[in-house]
Amino acid sequence: MDTKQMYSNSTEILQAIRERKPIVHQITNYVTVKDCANVVLAMGGSPIMADAEQELEDIVRLSNALVINIGTLNDRTRSSMFLAISIAQDRGIPIILDPVGAGASSYRTNTVQSMISHVVPTVIRGNLSEIRSVAQLSSHTFGVDSAGCDGTEQIEQTKGIAWNLSRKLGCVVAVTGKFDIVTDGTFMAIIENGHPALTQITGTGCMSTAMVGTCCAVTDDYFSAAVTALLGMGIAGELASVHAGLGSFHTALFDHLSRLDGALLMQKGAFHVS
Amino acid sequence: MDTKQMYSNSTEILQAIRERKPIVHQITNYVTVKDCANVVLAMGGSPIMADAEQELEDIVRLSNALVINIGTLNDRTRSSMFLAISIAQDRGIPIILDPVGAGASSYRTNTVQSMISHVVPTVIRGNLSEIRSVAQLSSHTFGVDSAGCDGTEQIEQTKGIAWNLSRKLGCVVAVTGKFDIVTDGTFMAIIENGHPALTQITGTGCMSTAMVGTCCAVTDDYFSAAVTALLGMGIAGELASVHAGLGSFHTALFDHLSRLDGALLMQKGAFHVS
Amino acid sequence: MDTKQMYSNSTEILQAIRERKPIVHQITNYVTVKDCANVVLAMGGSPIMADAEQELEDIVRLSNALVINIGTLNDRTRSSMFLAISIAQDRGIPIILDPVGAGASSYRTNTVQSMISHVVPTVIRGNLSEIRSVAQLSSHTFGVDSAGCDGTEQIEQTKGIAWNLSRKLGCVVAVTGKFDIVTDGTFMAIIENGHPALTQITGTGCMSTAMVGTCCAVTDDYFSAAVTALLGMGIAGELASVHAGLGSFHTALFDHLSRLDGALLMQKGAFHVS
Repeated sequence: MDTKQMYSNSTEILQAIRERKPIVHQITNYVTVKDCANVVLAMGGSPIMADAEQELEDIVRLSNALVINIGTLNDRTRSSMFLAISIAQDRGIPIILDPVGAGASSYRTNTVQSMISHVVPTVIRGNLSEIRSVAQLSSHTFGVDSAGCDGTEQIEQTKGIAWNLSRKLGCVVAVTGKFDIVTDGTFMAIIENGHPALTQITGTGCMSTAMVGTCCAVTDDYFSAAVTALLGMGIAGELASVHAGLGSFHTALFDHLSRLDGALLMQKGAFHVS
Repeated sequence: MDTKQMYSNSTEILQAIRERKPIVHQITNYVTVKDCANVVLAMGGSPIMADAEQELEDIVRLSNALVINIGTLNDRTRSSMFLAISIAQDRGIPIILDPVGAGASSYRTNTVQSMISHVVPTVIRGNLSEIRSVAQLSSHTFGVDSAGCDGTEQIEQTKGIAWNLSRKLGCVVAVTGKFDIVTDGTFMAIIENGHPALTQITGTGCMSTAMVGTCCAVTDDYFSAAVTALLGMGIAGELASVHAGLGSFHTALFDHLSRLDGALLMQKGAFHVS
Repeated sequence: MDTKQMYSNSTEILQAIRERKPIVHQITNYVTVKDCANVVLAMGGSPIMADAEQELEDIVRLSNALVINIGTLNDRTRSSMFLAISIAQDRGIPIILDPVGAGASSYRTNTVQSMISHVVPTVIRGNLSEIRSVAQLSSHTFGVDSAGCDGTEQIEQTKGIAWNLSRKLGCVVAVTGKFDIVTDGTFMAIIENGHPALTQITGTGCMSTAMVGTCCAVTDDYFSAAVTALLGMGIAGELASVHAGLGSFHTALFDHLSRLDGALLMQKGAFHVS
């Protein structure tokens, strides 16, 4: 895999989303849920938010990917998440897990551990402290929106953690921060796109995960799907950052997310893959 | 009823909302709830979101309309919806039903059937696949944001479905899509206003329903109320569509929704009524 | 306390938030929750939204302030709120209460009365009808977004109600409206900043409370914290109000909220304190 191949894959994935309009089912939190729906629409997909156990069999059957986000977990949605991942596994659709705040409470940490012991997700996307928690390494959490891979000195360490977790579980692991790391245990991508403003509004992590889900819904190359999604968010964040305040940044971010395509990724992408 | 009469009715309805500031109670989903509250405020009304059974008696008593939206239905909110519609019926306030995703799961389909067997809503607003489900006609659902009346070839069929459902239940039926169809079983309006971008952000359907509720809160001419609301959303969508991306579109949509009045509807409206 | 001293306090508080990035835990409603998270981030803090009883011990331990907002109360979140305030009191972190809709239903009214009999909040922030309800004075509620201190004739009455409630409970009371009143039973501030558009979008009250919580997280001068927060919201609202519609207003409001500092408050502030 080289960058040229990745751009080719990304172009195909982004095109396929606009053509096939995949249905992306999300059981997510009530903080960022609207942005998680809108980012799927912006990419050309069709979001369904449904978390009642009574309808999961029907909804998962309609869907091309399942995104699980534990941002505002409670016992009702927790049960629904376990049921949904079982059905999704049976039906063979990709399962994308965002372990929001794993490590911040034992309730979240234990829920994630229990989930990954039940079902192997297709992709896990989190910040460094969340991924450390999933990997059962000690960490220190500063809120749910902080703690990423934010310095060159951390890159090698983060690569190692992601690689080991990917090999252990057999899934794609994506760690977002100043640099984004994506690995499937064979390939490793390091993405330099992004902007600090992405950490100053809520939901960009959750939206990245929803984007990963949307990309996974049209391919079985889940590594390329995850890289495409994070490249897209990083580039949209850079393009939106010319604006002066966080309200305008949010608006501009969605403007650019709705215009993502392979050509833009090729023009603005800053990553290497090996 | 002709277009001139409708513009007169719309002008009065939009004015009455700004003067009387009706309270619009909504039991809705957690995806689009903020937009559903903001659109009521933008029109000059006062939204209340409350879904705990313990307070429904008090809240419905304060309110001038009740909007029920099953977008993220669960058993707790389902019970609350049934209680609220009973109280609203007893008190004689209009009940507006948005059967989001009816047809996508039997849980939603059955809930809607049960609701309309308990209480006749004042207005039902949905896309074509949802209205087909309410009418117990087979359909095919592509996510909750898709499937409308989107071609001239479908208009006659949609008119028939809406008309029959309206006559059967004795309520106003509004089907939104590329063309919006509104009927009360006597009059029939076809609205051509709108823009494809309205289908590319989440919540415009839910917001349309909230607007119907706001209009119904100040009149007992529910047909004119529904037409006014859908005209308003369609025109605001057209005016907002000059913007290049979906973030700016959302912002501009609310700018225009907050400036709706009879003069604008008369200037931009494209519909016929018979 | 004079205005000069207050500006000095505000400057320190706003700086301390950007330096220390306090964690602000909120149990709030699903209508305005994203804005409540974003305003904490805009000021430089770190929001955590968590409402499952199973994790409150862990989350409150991480946090520097707890914000309770009863906007869409139900029995599950009600229990969580009671548990969270007990833990927060034990740990000595400030508790900020937003009694949204108190007076609109006996469920809300009684919940608030029960809360303040269990634990003395650090700050209570509400509109006039909500504060009247907390003080067990009769009022008339017009929706949850209305009823403030909106005329000079009401200022003296509002000051009296706030003062008495503050003295009775031993906490800071903040009443927002056309004029904002803040008192700790010793000092009294009257803030003239603000703009009517703040009442035309949902969430500005909830966001004000979240801002109070963010300020309280870095100081034990809770009176200055509350004044700083309300000054900040009022000034941001004025600066945002040049825009023509409510969509642009919301965007501009967050632009200005993300740029608040002591210099801006000194330049634009209109208040007196005694």
